[in-house]
Amino acid sequence: MDRRRILLIIFDGLGDRPITELGHKTPLEAAPKPNLDWFAANGTNGLLDPIAPGVTAGSDTSHLALFGYDPVETYTGRGPFEAAGVGLALQKGDIAFRCNFASVDENLVLTDRRAGRIKEGTAELARALDGMRLGRVRVLFREGTEHRAVLVLRGKGLSADVSDTDPHEEGQKIPDAKPTNGKGKNTAKALNAFTRRAYEILKDHPVNKARTEKGLPPANMVVCRGGGVAPDLEPVTERYGLKAAGIAGVALIKGMFRSAGMDVIEVKGATGGLDTDMVAKAEAALMALTTYDLVVVNVKAADLCGHDGHASEKIKVIERMDQMMGHLKAHLPQDVVVAITADHSTPCGLKDHSGDPVPLTVFGNDVRVDEVPHFDERSVARGSLGRLRGRDLMPVLLSQANRTEKFGA
Amino acid sequence: MDRRRILLIIFDGLGDRPITELGHKTPLEAAPKPNLDWFAANGTNGLLDPIAPGVTAGSDTSHLALFGYDPVETYTGRGPFEAAGVGLALQKGDIAFRCNFASVDENLVLTDRRAGRIKEGTAELARALDGMRLGRVRVLFREGTEHRAVLVLRGKGLSADVSDTDPHEEGQKIPDAKPTNGKGKNTAKALNAFTRRAYEILKDHPVNKARTEKGLPPANMVVCRGGGVAPDLEPVTERYGLKAAGIAGVALIKGMFRSAGMDVIEVKGATGGLDTDMVAKAEAALMALTTYDLVVVNVKAADLCGHDGHASEKIKVIERMDQMMGHLKAHLPQDVVVAITADHSTPCGLKDHSGDPVPLTVFGNDVRVDEVPHFDERSVARGSLGRLRGRDLMPVLLSQANRTEKFGA
Repeated sequence: MDRRRILLIIFDGLGDRPITELGHKTPLEAAPKPNLDWFAANGTNGLLDPIAPGVTAGSDTSHLALFGYDPVETYTGRGPFEAAGVGLALQKGDIAFRCNFASVDENLVLTDRRAGRIKEGTAELARALDGMRLGRVRVLFREGTEHRAVLVLRGKGLSADVSDTDPHEEGQKIPDAKPTNGKGKNTAKALNAFTRRAYEILKDHPVNKARTEKGLPPANMVVCRGGGVAPDLEPVTERYGLKAAGIAGVALIKGMFRSAGMDVIEVKGATGGLDTDMVAKAEAALMALTTYDLVVVNVKAADLCGHDGHASEKIKVIERMDQMMGHLKAHLPQDVVVAITADHSTPCGLKDHSGDPVPLTVFGNDVRVDEVPHFDERSVARGSLGRLRGRDLMPVLLSQANRTEKFGA
Repeated sequence: MDRRRILLIIFDGLGDRPITELGHKTPLEAAPKPNLDWFAANGTNGLLDPIAPGVTAGSDTSHLALFGYDPVETYTGRGPFEAAGVGLALQKGDIAFRCNFASVDENLVLTDRRAGRIKEGTAELARALDGMRLGRVRVLFREGTEHRAVLVLRGKGLSADVSDTDPHEEGQKIPDAKPTNGKGKNTAKALNAFTRRAYEILKDHPVNKARTEKGLPPANMVVCRGGGVAPDLEPVTERYGLKAAGIAGVALIKGMFRSAGMDVIEVKGATGGLDTDMVAKAEAALMALTTYDLVVVNVKAADLCGHDGHASEKIKVIERMDQMMGHLKAHLPQDVVVAITADHSTPCGLKDHSGDPVPLTVFGNDVRVDEVPHFDERSVARGSLGRLRGRDLMPVLLSQANRTEKFGA
């Protein structure tokens, strides 16, 4: 059996809608992208609904589906993936929250939800909170990028059934976490105790004293949202018998990789921002393919342009994505099946995710090449793959890579 | 209501992938097949995933799906269908195994897994084993084609949770069947008792004495695999109100028909091999349509070429399939809906089943004819049926035949 390796490239938020200023083209249709088009012209194409037609996917739920899991069954919130993203290995029963370092006044009224987008000193602040004990509950705390952080509560009898302590709007007092049902009582108590202790520890912390002296808002509070229990995901190593690795700049996506049993490959210059080094990601992917069966690459930049509503910027990002694909094309081994897709659409006109399907190209040396000449939302709709769902992707790729087991005889 | 009859033609293993030697065409694309193309050009077309996208189907699980059953729910292994295929009417609780007549030495070490591909005398050997009593368990045993046979264990408290007694490799001792969980204990005991008794009965059987004198390996052992309980399938007669019949050369497929409540029509010259008389099958199908509402025809030959990796042979088989379709076209009554499809792809380059979808053409006097000119994997992808799943086929055909009942009012 001629087993192939699989390279799955996920351009975050790439899908879009026709934009008047672009002559009713989508950014993908408007951008010159000879290499992406080459893969489409030499591959088999279709549209992919990450979850189901019209369902607006988050990056987390979509990645679950693209890795073959049922997001409705397995998704427990974003917190646990963020925790995995910053390197916290969750245990069964742990509750994880996404947090911001924030600024509050002496009445615990929110004055800056991102503590002036604090960049430095967060590691020190996090260390001051990590390891805290709240009765029988233990606190694990890690800084993320900029003002972001992750809180994990570990102990018996915890549940994710609690409200956020993030008021989301400045001028509001930090609310108490409340159990949303009977099971959340212990967790709400622990989370409220954490919030009070965090303020006590942070308000006089040297990092914050220095910030105040410089006229910067102090990171004297932690606000929490999106609590969730560690999800129960069968690792892809067992599920598909694949040794797998992922490359991403964003912590959430790294957390998705780790939660699915994939190794995370850190790439210098892969920032998860507009400045990310896409060619470095491509090189890392090619290197990883020498030792892994499945390599997943997430490139975040197009999504950021969509959220900002910057169509011309999205076109520029697509041109850089195309250079990345050119590098891959030039150095791709014969026996690799390549899939190019997105985790969801982020139309510039909407500045948010939408339920529009995303383009999908599958390239490999014996795919049923169809007559689609371009990699964009409308061209691929005429392709041989038709309209698939996110959860179909892994089986389709495994089949193309000659790695499926027969069901029946 | 103008109710139509349905003719479903399943070309086993017909789907393929582009092949370099054929100028990157599939065998279907490379073969001249004016009649198949005529049905596509005058029908509505699409791609069919027998189970789901990317899932590699066996012939058995695929036929279940094509008949409208959920294979995940109903499939209990190949054994019961093989039993039905050789004419053993299974009862609830029966456990059926696929068997080989095999040769062992006096230490019960396997010396020939197919007893020299024994062709003659197997009916006599089977009769010597059939009816055996093992405590409260009764043995039903039938010969199949060549070295193949079927064992059914009938009794209370049996289950299919036992390991095979087929060591699969020569030079290995015949292993004891072991329960794979607590439920399999009685079955393992009965199967091991059968194995010992079968050896005692077969080793001195006149058929084997004659073989040994001729220098042929004796069929002195029976090895069993793939045990399964009789599946619980609502007959198509009740499920769809259809009087149905099937035509096939291969015992497994005949068993699929019988298990689904279809009559089996035996056709002289329908061998299930490359030498099968396809036109005879077409004539039998046309005859059957005078008394049945649904007639299913399975033609195995293309699958054999795929397993052997013989693309040029597959093209020749397709040309013969086309002659069969020409015969059908010339004699087809007005009121018959014809579906032409495959149960799975068996790419010549892979020499095994794959998860690639198969072409589907539905022809009838008021189908929504689309612009697909050819019956092949890529042409039909542009058709009006889009991409369907195996389980969708029966409802689509019933609707085209004006035989569905309204869901709702």
